[in-house]
Amino acid sequence: MADSPRGRARSESARQAILEATRDELAASGYDKLSIDRIATAAGAGKQTVYRWYRSKNELVAECILEGYVPARTAVIADSGEARDDLRAWLRGFADFLAEPENAALIRACTAAAAESDEVAVRFYESLTATNEAALTARLDSAVRRGQVRAGTSTAAMSEALIGAMLYRLLVRQAPTDEFIDGLLDMVCV
Amino acid sequence: MADSPRGRARSESARQAILEATRDELAASGYDKLSIDRIATAAGAGKQTVYRWYRSKNELVAECILEGYVPARTAVIADSGEARDDLRAWLRGFADFLAEPENAALIRACTAAAAESDEVAVRFYESLTATNEAALTARLDSAVRRGQVRAGTSTAAMSEALIGAMLYRLLVRQAPTDEFIDGLLDMVCV
Repeated sequence: MADSPRGRARSESARQAILEATRDELAASGYDKLSIDRIATAAGAGKQTVYRWYRSKNELVAECILEGYVPARTAVIADSGEARDDLRAWLRGFADFLAEPENAALIRACTAAAAESDEVAVRFYESLTATNEAALTARLDSAVRRGQVRAGTSTAAMSEALIGAMLYRLLVRQAPTDEFIDGLLDMVCV
Repeated sequence: MADSPRGRARSESARQAILEATRDELAASGYDKLSIDRIATAAGAGKQTVYRWYRSKNELVAECILEGYVPARTAVIADSGEARDDLRAWLRGFADFLAEPENAALIRACTAAAAESDEVAVRFYESLTATNEAALTARLDSAVRRGQVRAGTSTAAMSEALIGAMLYRLLVRQAPTDEFIDGLLDMVCV
């Protein structure tokens, strides 16, 4: 947010109304047709207020997700004892999630907002991304102990490479195929 | 571009003037202080024209790079015979490039523009990203033949994982350390 309303009691209800209206607009019209004018009207807020607090549609949507108005995807990585199967299921689930155009639009909006704003980037990392990254690293660590993932390699770097590869596919508009996912698995599994 | 001027001779000179003015503004003020108003004035174009052709500052900057007004980084990957050294030098060079705030701002603007627009994403991929990806894959293939990179793994997937990991670091605002780069190298090298 360019001029954060947080911490100021008088504008807190306006902020909540804007985020609720954004959530409702997203559900009704989807990201591509999201209209800041309609959101301002529905929230009973001035259009200028919305634009002062959020520099772009992307930043408004990112705030909705960060504040829990729109649920973020929380990826659970199973631990069945078979690392390749568990990692494949997680990557495939991620790919299937992104195959829904509305999910892809929301993640792209958050990516754009993070690219544009240091503040949004750090808030996303601290509240969502770091948790996913840590869960993936922990699963890789457990697989290393069972001899299923390459030892002697930083599992943190592997984790960032796997997440980064999926993000890259989203940005270049190429759906991750099963072959691509198997290629990533071959890279980390023994 | 929301309403592409390309192919229409009458607006071609206006388009060139806008891109030249953007290049000059970038050199003089940098990305963060880039002003579409000043660009329109310098180009002798209406502000509305600029906004009709380019939906955001990000898209305008992306167009400048795609059209060669601002040079894109062309990464040459050496082939000294030692894959780990060559890949480390390439990744370190990429990290050093991103360590310059103005370079990082331009790459983040292009990332945001690609996240926001299918057209920009595809043009970037076809004219720049795919070339870098292919060069990295070719270098990995040569290293596999010399037994320096894991065989039996898709070098295309490795290549996307390496590029994706660097992009991820840019988005989460964490400079790639030497330790991080060594972790990536351990993942692909034997």
